[in-house]
Amino acid sequence: MIALYTAFGIDDIYVAQVKSVLLQQLDRRVPIVDLLHSAPAFDVPAGAHLLAALQARFPPATVFLAVVDPGVGPERDAAVVEADGKWFVGPDNGLLSVTADRATDVRTWRILWRPTALSVSFHGRDLFSPVAAWIATGIFPEDKLEETPGLNIRLEAGDRPHVIYVDHYGNAVTGLRACNVPETAALGAGGRRIEHERVFANARPGGAFWYENSVGLVEIAANRASAAELLSIRVGDAVSVQR
Amino acid sequence: MIALYTAFGIDDIYVAQVKSVLLQQLDRRVPIVDLLHSAPAFDVPAGAHLLAALQARFPPATVFLAVVDPGVGPERDAAVVEADGKWFVGPDNGLLSVTADRATDVRTWRILWRPTALSVSFHGRDLFSPVAAWIATGIFPEDKLEETPGLNIRLEAGDRPHVIYVDHYGNAVTGLRACNVPETAALGAGGRRIEHERVFANARPGGAFWYENSVGLVEIAANRASAAELLSIRVGDAVSVQR
Amino acid sequence: MIALYTAFGIDDIYVAQVKSVLLQQLDRRVPIVDLLHSAPAFDVPAGAHLLAALQARFPPATVFLAVVDPGVGPERDAAVVEADGKWFVGPDNGLLSVTADRATDVRTWRILWRPTALSVSFHGRDLFSPVAAWIATGIFPEDKLEETPGLNIRLEAGDRPHVIYVDHYGNAVTGLRACNVPETAALGAGGRRIEHERVFANARPGGAFWYENSVGLVEIAANRASAAELLSIRVGDAVSVQR
Repeated sequence: MIALYTAFGIDDIYVAQVKSVLLQQLDRRVPIVDLLHSAPAFDVPAGAHLLAALQARFPPATVFLAVVDPGVGPERDAAVVEADGKWFVGPDNGLLSVTADRATDVRTWRILWRPTALSVSFHGRDLFSPVAAWIATGIFPEDKLEETPGLNIRLEAGDRPHVIYVDHYGNAVTGLRACNVPETAALGAGGRRIEHERVFANARPGGAFWYENSVGLVEIAANRASAAELLSIRVGDAVSVQR
Repeated sequence: MIALYTAFGIDDIYVAQVKSVLLQQLDRRVPIVDLLHSAPAFDVPAGAHLLAALQARFPPATVFLAVVDPGVGPERDAAVVEADGKWFVGPDNGLLSVTADRATDVRTWRILWRPTALSVSFHGRDLFSPVAAWIATGIFPEDKLEETPGLNIRLEAGDRPHVIYVDHYGNAVTGLRACNVPETAALGAGGRRIEHERVFANARPGGAFWYENSVGLVEIAANRASAAELLSIRVGDAVSVQR
Repeated sequence: MIALYTAFGIDDIYVAQVKSVLLQQLDRRVPIVDLLHSAPAFDVPAGAHLLAALQARFPPATVFLAVVDPGVGPERDAAVVEADGKWFVGPDNGLLSVTADRATDVRTWRILWRPTALSVSFHGRDLFSPVAAWIATGIFPEDKLEETPGLNIRLEAGDRPHVIYVDHYGNAVTGLRACNVPETAALGAGGRRIEHERVFANARPGGAFWYENSVGLVEIAANRASAAELLSIRVGDAVSVQR
């Protein structure tokens, strides 16, 4: 399986161009899944923490094509990461580093290969897609890579006390792993104190609460309302834990 | 074929998690189709009537994973419905009942099985997806189900005189089946009287009219304009038939 | 591969109905790719020029189901185009003509066949999808077509000095091919003079510039901002080249 994790937008002219490249190289039995095309475009740490949480739900050997690449540009390397049996192909700008740093078995490579035609703005299509397709097909492109001791850019891999994603319901996902936050703790966000509830139905309509979401992160929600609007919070905003 | 009918949003972190579960269980030749991920989130009757109309366009043996589940919660059962040769897996909250009640050959089951890890907020992924995948693979999971005389929650299955969906053009789909509304009748909606036109081109630009849409429902449209904006109508609003 | 190029909206009730028809006819090994479902709905020339640029990125034998069809209606023909080894199925309203006129080897057909049930508003599903599926399966439906000397409606196939698409970042794609515009030229758009930059990183934050985008078109962008908002430009607006 190839899982696409990008900021390309699901209904725009970019994703299909990536898929066209992948399909020309792939065995037809390798499914391509749109994991997320609205990853935070300009907040690489948020995208890195969200990817680390989401990838855990995918089976071994999944190849993640992960492209959040503000500024593109030649100053960052292109990387391949193998982390606990899954593969990650993308820019070496921190996006893959949280997943890598949390894994037990990790190997990293720099992509040396360059396509004949490399557009300045679309490495996702021209550079990362062919490499991801090779790996997904089972042909590890060793001659096109150079193994490295680690990624160049490594972000803090511990819990991130910030909003990292707001979903279409207005729920605000944080970079805090719920296993590290006791249910007795309250959160501070948007100038408000937010208590824990185990299920949506327990919260009063319109009231904000936090709970462990379905990928193990602390999430701020509101029963039948948008927590993000209610609290005026968005991706990047700080969240505190009040024990 | 598995058809996904949800309120998860097409560009969010939920659909891919469902697909990851399905793909781990499915034979690769079973296609997964995104039927709709913007089903009305908090209006189960609207979603039930829309599903009943849309499912008719799909071939026999299609498995519909249908999840519109405000409040989730343990108080509702999880159901499997076989209706005229198609399969429906989802909450027993009315969503599947219009389709079931309109079918000639119907069987219903309660899902007894629970996964080892059942998140509080994402039964679509943890509970309904595995069951849908089993059925789609041709392994009917009899030991995990209990046949029931019918669904617990049954909504009115006759025509629904309300707006049940607004599409991205601003056309307002109603729960009225066009076969039950003579072309000579007018509709009342948004305080206006709306006459029938057979084709868009016949309507004056900006004027609202109703017509039989491509799934057999009465739909209020406007030529090159948003009928929903023009009439200030939205999902749930009542529509009257003026014969 | 079948590539879908429509104005149906990615998260609406239309695309899945098309896919249901295709999947019922197709060999499972033919992938279906959502090329774009937000093609300009009411600007056929824009859609025609965008299609001409995008299709070039797809491999030989791709079948494009291309439906931008304001007004639908019986007054336009339905067409099949073979252009340099790729296939295009859609309305004969100009949408396919830019691609056809730019190709070296072109053949065109009128679709004579009509399905038993043809909805007034959804020829994409009822008429074009079956024909596209036949072609993609390798069964050219000769008996259902009539070869023609060319398309009825042919738009200007040279560069189009207008905005033809605005992406979700707010970048404004024009119908000018970058190979015809020297880098020393400036553009006039939204009452402003816009200079060339080769890469986003070179532009000052918030400043507009033009560059050759990843499909070879002149595109107006802004570093970390929406060029469309900055310049108040949208699809259809004129763009001048100031040499």
